[in-house]
Amino acid sequence: MRGRSQNWLFRGAAVATILVAVTATGVASGRENGQDRSRDVQRAIDGGQARNVILLIGDGMGDSEITLARNYAYGAAGRMALDTLPLTGAMTTYSVLPDGRTPDYTPESASTATAWSTGSKTVDGRISTNAADQDLPAVLDQAERAGMRTGVVTTSELTDATPAGPMSHVASRSCQGPADMAACPQDVKNAGGPGSIAEQSIDHKVDVLFGGGRARYEQAVTGGRYTGRSVVQQAQAEGYQYVTDLPGLERVQSGKPVLGLFSSGNLATRWEGPTAARPAVPAQRCNEANPGAADEPGLDRMTNRALELLSARQQGRGSDKGFFLQVESASIDKQEHASEPCEQIGETVNFDNAVKAALDFAARDRNTLVIVTGDHAHPSQIVEVGSQPAGFSSILTTREGAQMQVTYGTGSTATGRGHTGAQIRVAAQGPQAANVVGVIDQTEIATIMRRALRL
Amino acid sequence: MRGRSQNWLFRGAAVATILVAVTATGVASGRENGQDRSRDVQRAIDGGQARNVILLIGDGMGDSEITLARNYAYGAAGRMALDTLPLTGAMTTYSVLPDGRTPDYTPESASTATAWSTGSKTVDGRISTNAADQDLPAVLDQAERAGMRTGVVTTSELTDATPAGPMSHVASRSCQGPADMAACPQDVKNAGGPGSIAEQSIDHKVDVLFGGGRARYEQAVTGGRYTGRSVVQQAQAEGYQYVTDLPGLERVQSGKPVLGLFSSGNLATRWEGPTAARPAVPAQRCNEANPGAADEPGLDRMTNRALELLSARQQGRGSDKGFFLQVESASIDKQEHASEPCEQIGETVNFDNAVKAALDFAARDRNTLVIVTGDHAHPSQIVEVGSQPAGFSSILTTREGAQMQVTYGTGSTATGRGHTGAQIRVAAQGPQAANVVGVIDQTEIATIMRRALRL
Repeated sequence: MRGRSQNWLFRGAAVATILVAVTATGVASGRENGQDRSRDVQRAIDGGQARNVILLIGDGMGDSEITLARNYAYGAAGRMALDTLPLTGAMTTYSVLPDGRTPDYTPESASTATAWSTGSKTVDGRISTNAADQDLPAVLDQAERAGMRTGVVTTSELTDATPAGPMSHVASRSCQGPADMAACPQDVKNAGGPGSIAEQSIDHKVDVLFGGGRARYEQAVTGGRYTGRSVVQQAQAEGYQYVTDLPGLERVQSGKPVLGLFSSGNLATRWEGPTAARPAVPAQRCNEANPGAADEPGLDRMTNRALELLSARQQGRGSDKGFFLQVESASIDKQEHASEPCEQIGETVNFDNAVKAALDFAARDRNTLVIVTGDHAHPSQIVEVGSQPAGFSSILTTREGAQMQVTYGTGSTATGRGHTGAQIRVAAQGPQAANVVGVIDQTEIATIMRRALRL
Repeated sequence: MRGRSQNWLFRGAAVATILVAVTATGVASGRENGQDRSRDVQRAIDGGQARNVILLIGDGMGDSEITLARNYAYGAAGRMALDTLPLTGAMTTYSVLPDGRTPDYTPESASTATAWSTGSKTVDGRISTNAADQDLPAVLDQAERAGMRTGVVTTSELTDATPAGPMSHVASRSCQGPADMAACPQDVKNAGGPGSIAEQSIDHKVDVLFGGGRARYEQAVTGGRYTGRSVVQQAQAEGYQYVTDLPGLERVQSGKPVLGLFSSGNLATRWEGPTAARPAVPAQRCNEANPGAADEPGLDRMTNRALELLSARQQGRGSDKGFFLQVESASIDKQEHASEPCEQIGETVNFDNAVKAALDFAARDRNTLVIVTGDHAHPSQIVEVGSQPAGFSSILTTREGAQMQVTYGTGSTATGRGHTGAQIRVAAQGPQAANVVGVIDQTEIATIMRRALRL
């Protein structure tokens, strides 16, 4: 166990840390009975050091997406797991134009992943490289060098922008596999570069890699000793356990790195329902068990397994030095782009189940900083039932029996990626968590994680 | 001065209170240099009692509206006064359907004003009355009974829903003046009711009333001893100072209540610019000095004057018992309904200037709880420059020289009032402020204010 910092903020801080789990409950109960929660918030503040960091990202999850999922699945007065984190703030997410300086007020997932992975703003589309195409040092790299274990879990291809951020440095998010390097000639392995995102994820020896994107990893490596073999074969040759299905996910063991690719592309959404339309799709419930997802692990199960593997006590590398884990629910964003409210809400609920898994872990290993946020805002909005907004709409009947109309104002034309630029919610628990309170920038997530881990 | 609570949370709390103003600065500087802000957040927590409460409401101001104003006027990395409050959370704003129980996920300003004014959910359109048309006890009423001074300041008609919430109880927000009672026959004075919102504001003896809506107050009272005289005449007969212009605002003195009606209807917006359109209005700057507003006080000036009057030491009523002041920037909402980005942003900046006035006051009288939030979310969104969203758009050139496109997804049809249902930001400073951290409901604002004032 890492030595705890001397930087205790107040008498009783050790007790306070132990009470973090109680605090989350206290927040809820304090709310219900109208009691002063000042003491609970106080107790949740811990200026010390973290052994582990779990960063959970809902892609495209701003306040509107959170409220949609809460209303639908838990009721307007209900509370999700992500609502219970004791310290909260707002986060700005802008990126920069190619001049490296002028703000771009509507970022996308590569620039935003770069922001929290490295602490630096970059140009849309870049993965942990700056406008001059220089690599930006990433928290995951630093954690690995400090002997910590690392993990990246997502419901998208593992080579998509958000998982790529912490574990690769490449000029374009499109350079996912060795056959996808058109936009990154300087990064190709046989040109002396670090290779595609898939290759870098293995070269960086990330201990736990769970997600989709098998097709990217089946592409042939183009340089170095594995030339002509697939990235999967390279991984296996370098000691990775490789699994592709639910039984495989259960089978993997700690002590060796693991590559779990549970879909050729993105994982299926857990829920399904009709696409929004104009006029609005009439009142309906979502199908909360998409048969297409039955053979794939949910984000909560992948998160739980990742936490088991990363925290297992064992001999050898990183055994006692904690871990850094990034978990992403990718298809909140992807289903918003497609104006699919049931899929979007289901993936937000799926994300919340992963947050619960992280909070359950943190209740057992309290030296864990948990941060829950999104990467950028998105256009879904809750509008008056029966209104005729300009974009596509659906009316959903929520679990509490009320009607809720959702609309996509930027999703009804082919142009534009449809992201929006509003600040989004950030919530945290554990050492250094108080630093998310107020208004922060996305780059400060990297600063907070580094300080918590003394990197 | 009220006795301070024994309920100090930690050693040094008295020092902590004194350092609140420093804390706000510390938050900013901590952010800039990447230092741990845990101690600053800690110091901002005060579980004690407040002498004064200042509640500042940006009507329709969610995270998107805040980000739009920040980007335009201060830059994406800039900070507004409302960004500097040390304790922050998210707030749900839903109302209820006429059954009094089923959630209405897209509230309007009467039900939301009722929520924070009384602590109870109600049906859209109702002002501090429940679904059964019973009066709900309001914080302002309780503060008055406790001998405190009270004030309501707005840029709309003083009889509009948001200012009406704390100072009246009526079946419909439309019942603004004695001639507007069609929807509230049971509330009419000569039917034994409490009268219109205008009449009730005077009957409740609110000490400071600043806003628009002169035409409502010029209507004739229909019952009681002032039958046939205007509400203004009633107010004057009952000891109110009455002013209608900027010199009048400067002239009023403490010791007697004051009615300041600076416009026949709503006050003019401080900024102006072209209406959003489809396709988007090309890049432009706003006119930040609307000549139509030159003869009217800004919200900051009204707020400053209200604070001077409410806090003045004097003989007589409420002299040493503190005050409750509600300040609203109404036309953030109204200009969103009209798809007017410059007017909307200008009113948000105007609101922020009022927040600064409140924080400056709180820096001098530290036993002041300041709460800054909105009442409900609204559709304006920041979208990719050059995109073609479904609604009306404008491109603005921000002060930092970048382009920002704003769109109104629910504003391009005549149907629907265009509000949205996302949770919105809440920020606070001073005694009991930590209770806004996490996720709260709008009704908890009343609970927090009551606890802070021991009502």
